Amino acid sequence: MSKRGGTEQALALAKGKKIRSAEDVLKKVKSLAAELTASTEVDKTLAQLNLPYNCREVVDKDTDEVLAEIESAIYGVAASIMDGEGFSFDIPSRAKGNQMYVPELDRIVLRDTVSKRPFASTATCRKAAVTSRILSLVHELVGKRIHVTKRDLFYTDVKLFEDQGQSDAVLDDLACMLGCTRSSLHVVASEKGVVVGRLTFREDGDFIDCQRMGVGGKAIPPNVDKVSDISSDAAFILLVEKDAAFMRLAEDRFYNTFPCIILTAKGQPDVATRLFLKRLKTTLKIPVLALVDSDPYGLKILSVYMKGSMNMSYDSSNLTTPDIKWLGVRPSDLDRFSIPEQCRLPMSEEDIKTGRRLLEEDFIRANPEWVKELELMLASKVKAEIQALSSFGFQYLTQVYLPLKLQEGDWI
Amino acid sequence: MSKRGGTEQALALAKGKKIRSAEDVLKKVKSLAAELTASTEVDKTLAQLNLPYNCREVVDKDTDEVLAEIESAIYGVAASIMDGEGFSFDIPSRAKGNQMYVPELDRIVLRDTVSKRPFASTATCRKAAVTSRILSLVHELVGKRIHVTKRDLFYTDVKLFEDQGQSDAVLDDLACMLGCTRSSLHVVASEKGVVVGRLTFREDGDFIDCQRMGVGGKAIPPNVDKVSDISSDAAFILLVEKDAAFMRLAEDRFYNTFPCIILTAKGQPDVATRLFLKRLKTTLKIPVLALVDSDPYGLKILSVYMKGSMNMSYDSSNLTTPDIKWLGVRPSDLDRFSIPEQCRLPMSEEDIKTGRRLLEEDFIRANPEWVKELELMLASKVKAEIQALSSFGFQYLTQVYLPLKLQEGDWI
Repeated sequence: MSKRGGTEQALALAKGKKIRSAEDVLKKVKSLAAELTASTEVDKTLAQLNLPYNCREVVDKDTDEVLAEIESAIYGVAASIMDGEGFSFDIPSRAKGNQMYVPELDRIVLRDTVSKRPFASTATCRKAAVTSRILSLVHELVGKRIHVTKRDLFYTDVKLFEDQGQSDAVLDDLACMLGCTRSSLHVVASEKGVVVGRLTFREDGDFIDCQRMGVGGKAIPPNVDKVSDISSDAAFILLVEKDAAFMRLAEDRFYNTFPCIILTAKGQPDVATRLFLKRLKTTLKIPVLALVDSDPYGLKILSVYMKGSMNMSYDSSNLTTPDIKWLGVRPSDLDRFSIPEQCRLPMSEEDIKTGRRLLEEDFIRANPEWVKELELMLASKVKAEIQALSSFGFQYLTQVYLPLKLQEGDWI
Repeated sequence: MSKRGGTEQALALAKGKKIRSAEDVLKKVKSLAAELTASTEVDKTLAQLNLPYNCREVVDKDTDEVLAEIESAIYGVAASIMDGEGFSFDIPSRAKGNQMYVPELDRIVLRDTVSKRPFASTATCRKAAVTSRILSLVHELVGKRIHVTKRDLFYTDVKLFEDQGQSDAVLDDLACMLGCTRSSLHVVASEKGVVVGRLTFREDGDFIDCQRMGVGGKAIPPNVDKVSDISSDAAFILLVEKDAAFMRLAEDRFYNTFPCIILTAKGQPDVATRLFLKRLKTTLKIPVLALVDSDPYGLKILSVYMKGSMNMSYDSSNLTTPDIKWLGVRPSDLDRFSIPEQCRLPMSEEDIKTGRRLLEEDFIRANPEWVKELELMLASKVKAEIQALSSFGFQYLTQVYLPLKLQEGDWI
C-alpha cells in the first residue's frame, strides 16, 4: 500500500536523519533525568526559603493530622468563647491582593492576611454557620476514611448551603485554615485522565501494573492519597494533550521500546491528573516531556500543568509541575518535518488574541526559546494538531517523530 | 457525628423496611437474570426474522473477513470496468427515507436502497475518489491490525478530504457497503467510560481484573474487538450516569457485597462505552440496571444506550442494549424516600419541553410504567440528581438506597 512509501519519504524528509537503537535514542533524555536527580532545587518548600515575609501554603496531611487540625481549630473557637471574645474562626484571605508570585518557587502563594469570621455579626453569621457545618462534615469524612465530591458535600445540607458556590468557597477557606490540601480533606475532583506504561503502584491496596492495561489504560484515581508504592523504570513521562495520540502510543506499546509513562487528561487538565503527575514527578524524579497541539490552546494546557490556576493558588505546590519540557508539536516543527500545507490551519482572531496574551505571561517569558516559538506561531498565523503528523502515515508519530525528537534531545 | 443519626432516620423513613442479608437482597435480581438466560429473544438478528422485505444491518467482522470484503468490493469495481460500465461503487443509502423501525427487533435498521457512485460523473467523481482512498486506508489499517480515530483518518489526506465531515460520511458509507461495523474497520471512538467490579477480561493480551482496579477503575478500551475472554460472577450490571456516584460505589466496593459490574460513561454515552456494555450484556446475559438523575436528561441518556442515535442506525444492533431496567432515581422515589424539599430542583422550561418530547417516543411508550413516572415528573415539575440521596449521609446510596431497591426488585 502507498502508506509504507509515505513513511519512508517522511523519514527522508527529516533531513536524512537515521533513528538509531532505542538505547542510543534515550541517551539525551537519560542525561536530562540525571540532571534532575542531581538538582536539589526540585522540591523547594516555603519553609526552606526563609523568606523575609510570611507566606502560606498547604501540604498533604494524613488522616490523623487532619483530624488533629480540625480538633485544634475547634479548641481555638472554644478558647475564644471562654475569653469572652465569642464564637469565631480565623480564616486566611484568598483574595487576589493576598496572592503573591514567589520567583524562588516559581509559583503563586498566599500572604498571611487573616480575617475573623465571628458568629455574632450579621455580616458573617451565616458564613460562620456554614464553616462549622463543613468542618463537621469533613471531620466525619476523614474519620470514616471515605471520599466525596464537592457536589456530594453540597447536597448534605442544601437548606443551609443554598448553592454549591457557597459550600465550595468555604471548603477552600478550610483547606487554607487547616493548612492542608483539599484532597487531604477527602473532597476530591472527578477523574478524567488515563495512564499506561512502565509504572506500577498500589491503589487502595490493589496492585496496578500500567504495562498490563491493554490499550485503554488505567483511569487516574480521583483520590491520589490512596496511591502508594509508586515504582517505575521509565526514562521519562510523556504528557499527551489528546486521547487520539494517547491511543496511538498505547496501541503501539511505545513504552516497550522507549521506557516511559504515558499520561493524558484528554484536553483541559483536571485536578486529579495534575495531582497524579506532580506525585509521579516528585517520586520518580524523571523528566516530563509534553506533546500538545501547535496552537495557543496547547500552550494554555501546559500553563495549567505548570502554573496552576489563580483560584487554587494556596495549593499551588501540590498541583503544579514546574519544569515540563515542550517536546512538540512546536511551530518550528511544521517546516522542519515538512508538514503539508493542507494540514496547517489558519489561526482565528481569537487564537491570535490568546497567543498575544500568552506572550505576556511569566511562564512563557521565563524561557526565551518558548517566546521564539510562540512568536513564530503568531507571525505565521498558522496552527497544527498532533494529528497532522498522520499525513505521513498512521504510525509516523511513534516510529519516526518521537524517536527523532528524543534522539536529538529536541525539547525546550 | 450527626450523620449517623441521619442514616438511621433515613432507614426509618424507608417505611421501616429492613435490609436483609446480601444473599436475600439479590434474590429478585437473580430471578431476573434467570429469565434473561431462559429467553431466546435476546439476540434476534435480521436473518432470523425472515422479514418479507430486505433490510441491511452491519455485524462485527474479523480482520480476514474485512480484508476479503474490501477485496471483493474492488473485484466488483474491476468487473464493472470490464463490463464497460466504468469505475463505480454501489453504496447503500443511509438517508432517513431508507431507515425503518423494526418492532420485532425493537430498533431502527436500513432498507435496501442502493445508489451508484460512478467516477465518470461530475456529481460523484470526487466522492468516488474519496471512497477509493478511504477503502485503501482501511485496508492498510486492518492489514496492520492497528486502530486510529476518525480525526487521524482525515489527516492522512487533508487535500483530498477537504473537511472531516466528508471522510466521516464516506467511512459510514463503507461500513454499510462492507456490511461491518465501524470498529471492524479499525476506526474507533475515543474512550470516556470506566468500569470496576466482578469482571475479568483480556485486552490486547493483558489480563484485566476489574475487582483490582482501586477506586479509579479501568478505562473502557476504545477498540472493543481487542477485548476477549470476558468472565464474571456478577448478578447484574449497574449502569451509572455520573462519575460521582461511580466513585462512591467504587470506593465502598459495593461489588464485594453485591456481586455486580459498575459502569459509567460520565454523562452522555460514547460509542466505546455503548459497544462495551452491549458486549458484556450479550456475553454474560445478566440484567442491566440503570442509576440516572431523575430528570429528562437522565432518560435521554438511557434512550441513547437503548435505542442509539439516528445517524448510526445501520449499526444499531451492535450499539444498543434494549432491555435496560430503570432502577432509579425515579420521580416516585422522591416521595417514597422522603428526599428533602431543598434537594428537589424546579424543572426549567427546556426540561419540561424535553420531557414532553420524550413522552412521544416509542421506547418510553413501550413501557407504561416509564410513562407513569415521566408523567409524574412533568406534573410535579420537579427534578433531582443522584446526589440528592447524600442528604441522608454520604453512604446512604450504597448502604440503604441500592440494597433496598434490589431487595424489593424495584426496577421498571
